[in-house]
Parts: sequence; C-alpha cells; structure tokens
Amino acid sequence: MHIDLNSDLGESFGAWSMGNDAAMLDIVSSANVACGFHAGDPAGILQTLKAAAERGVAVGAHVSYPDLQGFGRRNMDLASADLVADVIYQVSALSGMAATVGTTVRYVKPHGALYNTIASDERQARDVIAAIRAVNPELALVALAGSPLVGWARGAGLRVIAEAFADRAYTAQGTLVSRREKGAVLHDAADVAQRMLRLVREGTVLAIDGSVARVEAQSICVHGDSDGALEMARAVRAALERDGIAIRTFAA
Amino acid sequence: MHIDLNSDLGESFGAWSMGNDAAMLDIVSSANVACGFHAGDPAGILQTLKAAAERGVAVGAHVSYPDLQGFGRRNMDLASADLVADVIYQVSALSGMAATVGTTVRYVKPHGALYNTIASDERQARDVIAAIRAVNPELALVALAGSPLVGWARGAGLRVIAEAFADRAYTAQGTLVSRREKGAVLHDAADVAQRMLRLVREGTVLAIDGSVARVEAQSICVHGDSDGALEMARAVRAALERDGIAIRTFAA
Amino acid sequence: MHIDLNSDLGESFGAWSMGNDAAMLDIVSSANVACGFHAGDPAGILQTLKAAAERGVAVGAHVSYPDLQGFGRRNMDLASADLVADVIYQVSALSGMAATVGTTVRYVKPHGALYNTIASDERQARDVIAAIRAVNPELALVALAGSPLVGWARGAGLRVIAEAFADRAYTAQGTLVSRREKGAVLHDAADVAQRMLRLVREGTVLAIDGSVARVEAQSICVHGDSDGALEMARAVRAALERDGIAIRTFAA
Amino acid sequence: MHIDLNSDLGESFGAWSMGNDAAMLDIVSSANVACGFHAGDPAGILQTLKAAAERGVAVGAHVSYPDLQGFGRRNMDLASADLVADVIYQVSALSGMAATVGTTVRYVKPHGALYNTIASDERQARDVIAAIRAVNPELALVALAGSPLVGWARGAGLRVIAEAFADRAYTAQGTLVSRREKGAVLHDAADVAQRMLRLVREGTVLAIDGSVARVEAQSICVHGDSDGALEMARAVRAALERDGIAIRTFAA
Repeated sequence: MHIDLNSDLGESFGAWSMGNDAAMLDIVSSANVACGFHAGDPAGILQTLKAAAERGVAVGAHVSYPDLQGFGRRNMDLASADLVADVIYQVSALSGMAATVGTTVRYVKPHGALYNTIASDERQARDVIAAIRAVNPELALVALAGSPLVGWARGAGLRVIAEAFADRAYTAQGTLVSRREKGAVLHDAADVAQRMLRLVREGTVLAIDGSVARVEAQSICVHGDSDGALEMARAVRAALERDGIAIRTFAA
Repeated sequence: MHIDLNSDLGESFGAWSMGNDAAMLDIVSSANVACGFHAGDPAGILQTLKAAAERGVAVGAHVSYPDLQGFGRRNMDLASADLVADVIYQVSALSGMAATVGTTVRYVKPHGALYNTIASDERQARDVIAAIRAVNPELALVALAGSPLVGWARGAGLRVIAEAFADRAYTAQGTLVSRREKGAVLHDAADVAQRMLRLVREGTVLAIDGSVARVEAQSICVHGDSDGALEMARAVRAALERDGIAIRTFAA
Repeated sequence: MHIDLNSDLGESFGAWSMGNDAAMLDIVSSANVACGFHAGDPAGILQTLKAAAERGVAVGAHVSYPDLQGFGRRNMDLASADLVADVIYQVSALSGMAATVGTTVRYVKPHGALYNTIASDERQARDVIAAIRAVNPELALVALAGSPLVGWARGAGLRVIAEAFADRAYTAQGTLVSRREKGAVLHDAADVAQRMLRLVREGTVLAIDGSVARVEAQSICVHGDSDGALEMARAVRAALERDGIAIRTFAA
Repeated sequence: MHIDLNSDLGESFGAWSMGNDAAMLDIVSSANVACGFHAGDPAGILQTLKAAAERGVAVGAHVSYPDLQGFGRRNMDLASADLVADVIYQVSALSGMAATVGTTVRYVKPHGALYNTIASDERQARDVIAAIRAVNPELALVALAGSPLVGWARGAGLRVIAEAFADRAYTAQGTLVSRREKGAVLHDAADVAQRMLRLVREGTVLAIDGSVARVEAQSICVHGDSDGALEMARAVRAALERDGIAIRTFAA
C-alpha cells in the first residue's frame, strides 16, 4: 500500500522568501514547483529543482494565472488562446530547467484560483487539458478528488491524480468545505494524521456533519508555510509510514 | 554561395502590436523570437512560432534582461546566478512552445542591452554561454561579428554565428559605429543592398572613413519595424538572390 | 448647448506605441489618461499630461485592474482592500504627475473590465467610489449612462458624468448591445455623427431594433486608435459644432 | 540634542511578507515607505502609512528603479526622461496615499542601487533632484553622508538630510566600507549603539583602520529585517535616549 504526498515549493520571489523547501523535500514525494507566474524567479526555481532532484522527489509544474501581486489567487477570465499558451509556456519553462539539473517534469498541478476554477469550469478546464496534451500527453494532471475535472481530463486521455487536502474539512458529498465556513481548515496535527490514514486505508473521511464521505485520492497535499503546517506534514507522513504505507510518487 | 538573414519577431505584447511578422517571414531565413522578458506574451509567441514553422523559417530564442518597460534596452547588472537562470528559463520556455507547433529552437540570440554587453563583458558573456550549454550544447549563438564574444563562445565549444547589421555603418576596424554618432544608421535601401552583397562576396564593408573593413559574418540582421525597414530588408534579399546567393539559415 | 467629448490617451507603454494622442487632443475636451496599471509608463504619461495641459484639455485618471498583459480587459476578482488601494494609488500617481505640468486631475474613469464590472457589480462599485472619495470627494466619476453605478455613486455624494459611446449600438432599454452580438460596433462616421447630434439634442438614440431609446449623457466617448476611428471622432465633433453645440469638458 | 532614526518599511509584496513594520514604528522617527517599484503593493503601502500616521512617525518616499524581481538592488541605466518620470510617479503615488490616511510625505530617500548610484553619478543624481523639485521643492532628500550628492542637492536648493548607517563600518575618509570587504557589516548591538552615540555627540566614528573619521549625519538608518537587526535598532535607540538624546524626525 502506498500514497503520494505533494506540496507547493519554489514559491520565493527575488528578495522575498516563502516556505521551507529544504524541510518539505524530506517529507513529500512530489514537489509542485512554481513557474514564475504566481511565484518563483528563475534562479530560485532552479535551486528548488536541484534540491528536489538530489532527494529523488518527483517534480510537477505548478502553473498559474499571470498574477504575481495576487499570488495567483484571484480569478482572471483569460481567453482560451491566452490560457492555453500561458500553460504551455510555464510547463515548457519548467521542463527545460528541470532537464538542466537532471530531473524531469512529470505532472502539472494548477495553482490557486486556476486550480479552483478548472475543477468545475469546463471551458477553462479544457484549455488547460489541451495545453498539457500539446506539451506532452504523458504528463499527469493533479486535480481535486471528486471534481468534474477528473472526468474531463480522463476523457481527454490524460492520466489524472486525484488529490485530497490533509488540513481541510470535507462535506458529506466528499467535496471541500469552503474556506469561508467555520471549521473548514483543520489544525490538530494528530487528528489530521489519523484522517489521512483512514483516507488511504478506506478511501473515506469523516465529514464535517459526522457522516462518512468517500474520497478517492492518489495524492495528499500538505503544506509547509508555517511551523504548524510543517509539523502537521511530518505527523501525516509519520502516521502513514508507521502503518506500513509507503510514501511514493504516483509519477515514478 | 549562401547567407542567412535574421530578424527580431514576436515582439508584440498583449494589446500592443510591433513589427510585421508575416511580411518578415517571407524575407528572412531565421526568426529571433522574443521569449517574454523584453517582449512577447505566450499567445503571441506561439502564433509567431507557428507562422515561422509553416514557412520553414528557422527559430532562435531572443533572450533578454527582464525589463518589459525598457524593452530590454537598458543595462542591468544581474548577478551570475540570475543571468544564467534567466537565460535557461527563456530558452526552455521557447523550446517547449516551439515543439508544440512542430518546430525546434536552433539558436540563441541575446537581445538589446544584453547583446551589446556580452559582446565585450566577459563575466556576463560566460554566464550566457554556460546557460546555453546547460540547455543544449548543440544550440548556436548569434554574436556580433568581430567581438570578443565570438572567441569566448567558440572556446567554450559553442557553435557561433557571427552577425552583421545591414543598416549600420562600420568603423575601419570592422566594429559598429555607435548609434550616438552621425551616420551610424543607414537609410538608403539600394546602397545597403549593395553593401551586403559585398559583405557576402568579399567579407568586407566600406567603412565610415572610406577604408575597407573586414567583417566575417554568417548572418545578416534586417529589421521590419517600419515601412522603410521592410523595404530595405526586401531590397537586401532581392539583391543577394539576383546575384545568385542563396538565402538560407545557418541552422539547417 | 454643450457636450463633453472624452477619449483614452497615454496608452503607449515603453517601446510600444498606441493611439494618436496629438490628433485626439485636438478633438476631445477630456483626456482619460492611463495610470500604469493597464498601460502607460511614467515618462509617456507625463508627456500626455503635458500635451493635454498645453491644449487646455481636461485630465482624468483612467484607472484599471493591474494587468498590463491583458490591457485591463480581463475580469479580476480583487478583494476590496486591494481594489480600494489600487484605485487610490493610481489616482494619486496621476494627480501628482499632473501637478508637475500645471494641470489637475478632475475626474476618474475606470477602464476596460473594471468599467464594465462596476457598472453593475455593487461591491466593486462601492470600492471604487470609496477610493475616489478618499482621495478627493470633488473628483467626478465617468460612468456608463443608465447603469446602476450612476445611482450608487450619486447616492454616495459623487458627481457623476454619464457617458455614451459614439461607435456603439444601443438596445431599446438604452443599454449597450454586447460586443459579442452582430451590429454592436458602428463603422459609418456620418451616421454616427448624426446619432450623437440626436443624443445631445434630444437625449435619445435610435436603438438596434428601430425603436427610440432614452440615453442621458453628459459626455461622449470617442476613439482614436485607428485611422477610421480618428475620422469618426472628427466627424462627430464637426457635426456637433456645425449644429451650434459647444464641445467643452464637464470638468471645467 | 536630537537625532532622527529611519528605516525601510512597507516592503512586503502581495503574499510575501518582509520586515516587522509594527515593531520598527516603535523605534524609528522616520519611515521610508516603499512605493511599488522595488516592493510594496498598494494595500500594503496604505497599511504601513496608516500605522506610521497613528504613531506619529514621519513618512518618506523610498523611490527605486523599476525592478521588483531584483528588489531595486541592480543597477539600471535609465534614460533621464524615464528616471525623472519614475521618481515623480512614485513620490506622487505615495503622497496621495499618505493624504488619505492623514499624513504627509515629507522626504524622499532613494533605495538600493539608485541610492548608491546617485551618491556619485551626477547625471542620475540631477535627474532625481529635478524630479523631487518638480513635485515639491520643500521635500527633503535623504543622502549618504559625505557623498557628492549632498553638495549637488544643496546646490540645487533642496534640503538634504545626511545619513549614517548604524550597522556599517566606515573608512578613515568617512565613507562606507564596501560590503564586499571583510568587516563591512557590524553585528554587535552594544558596540553599534556606542558608535552611534559618538556619532551624534561628536560627529565622528571609529574607522575600520582604527583612526577617527568625521561623519556629519542628521539621521541614522537602522534595519528590522531580522531578530538581530531589530534588537540592534532597539539598542541604538535605548543608548541614545539614555544619554539624553531625543529621537525625532528632521522632517517635523
């Protein structure tokens, strides 16, 4: 039995530092590396790619709307020609950089507002799918477990990695509780670790209303942008390994 | 006998249009395509790459300092780690995009201030050379004919294409007359065409002081950013072909 | 009898030129000057302000979402704190620049996607209104004639200039026909000039369905980004003046 | 007896945080607030201005070359028209924002590479001086103590505040020891505090070669971008106040 742990890395920009890439690379099996549109300058991206390569962590392109100031978290209604080209550009840039440090981009994970939008907006979803296929149809797509995107992408021939979020509450339907609602974000590391164990073992999570929800995921997203987040990520990994579950990338 | 004609293309940005890519692609054998740092947004870059691929024009990465507002024409003292990574990023982005439309980036031509700086600044020159080699040591470098850069790059194992400028006056030493001096830029299309004929046939140009200067070039840069420039580029091509000189890319 | 003619100016950026500011400043009475978020670099903005001051054309801040690549034409869901601060920043920058060349920013006209969004999105509308009032409650707001924004802004105490578009078709309800529909944009300069005459004289336009629609506007927006547009703007001004209608800014 | 303490604030950008503005505002009497060219987004700038206003800390415009990725630390050879306009734009934006929260921009301090360059580059220095005078000739300029800039600016009629750096070593001539040299940056908070006491009392510092150098400064720059830096800034203030020296802005 095994599962993938993924996290967002390479999100510093120029003089501004974000996250703890070194620590996270010891925890995760897949690194979503920023491509310069929401975060990441070339020198920093290269450093993160090198560090991931050295630790044998798989690398994915964390593509975004072009919005440094908003960190890619604001919806933008890009025309299809722009969205397709923006994704091709980012995946291409990261793929070429990865090759110079001896690794390979194996998957694409949309970031922030783009991630949320294409989970259910078919037009933009199909643009991102088309872009990925144009670059390399062997690339996997990391998508929100249970979202319409999973079906659209599989239907288009892409390999999809459904993803769960360690620190988020789920509805009875197996969808994420909106961040605007109370209890949407979980803070107890031990509890979260147990939830993820159940997710991997049984394909279920305890929903916010006390019912049991089905969530089929091949990867778990963990964060490392605060001491608490880092501790939680470590707790998740430790609990899984203690239980005999191997942490390894889907992209092997 | 043959020569390459190259020009800067893909330099529109968003709502702003620049140059006449369609017309230039009928004249040149090599297209220096902007990579997004001084000009070029992904959708526009993709369009230019597609048009170049359709006409069989070779494609090169026109890499720049990161300075959209200054169009890459202002010197910037980038640290080596940044310059190397910036060049790798740009060549990678363009290479991946080119592949999606069935063509291949075959060479790198630095743009604007970066072009001028590395012609004689050894530190930055070696950074650019290292970046190109990291991506693909088979990539050629287009460099100012007669500049120290030609030797540094050849010494490092790169294939170098020395370049002359159709519309520029030369000193007796075979270097460009500075734009700040009178007579630096030539405007007579017929005269320029004859000069380029001589350059290809004899490897010489008539210098600004009336002497004959040696200029060994495998490519001639022409411009298309005004009606006059476009007419001059056409005149150069016509004169060369009339004289039995084939226009074809060095990068074939 | 009099009316204001306004146009978008100062929309060049670095090496990219857009529009014909000099020609338009002879036609319009109010210049909507870009503030650097969708277009306009400081040196270009200053030049446009200077030219407007010399011709006695009133100056307004053409504020936008922060999106150079999309020319401010793409919707962005900015948080209120960001939208308010972005508008304050832009109006402030333009106001200070205007003072250095002896003129004064007298009004604010939102640009592109922001213009369209706040015509009917109350949350973002109230953010823009709050920002304008924070800088200077005497500033006027140019808003789409007949839109809910007109009422919200007047209710908040702002002076509102309702605006009609010379080259656009109107519905029977006096709203703009969407650009996605056939016939939305008008091309016949003489016809457009007659329509604007009627608008000023009677407060009505012939709607796309043949009915007569009421449109109360204190300013008419004309464009100058092509030879045809420039000719149409001239025709509108000429027709109005021939009929004894003075062209003068509302902001006098 | 009194002295001004100044520090760089408002340098966060979007999702990226930098420095500890709240803590520093309890230590300094003057806040150099980023204007968006090297750091600072409008919402963050506004917050810093508000906090400074609440604490009665004077506000200055920390103007920069346009280079977010390089944090304004890389030299850029801007043409005079651009440099003048860039400075006018930044000072104007900050001044207008400051007014909305009840404070006033009282001085200009160039940032990073621009600060270092104009200390001795007369062309760029005169551009910055002209820009400041164009906006408001009453604005003071914070300049490196002992640099040629001090004379140029005073000669042009500007009020100049000569500035010393708490954490930097000085040469026997009273100039800064280059950061590239060993011992250029000081780390002992108690030692630095004593040095600054001497600077204020006697107008001298102990130079790196053991000699005594004259440094006439009306303001001392302290940093708050690390715990150590913050502690040093507090130590400097405490030592000065203990000795009966008032901390107050020159811009009162």
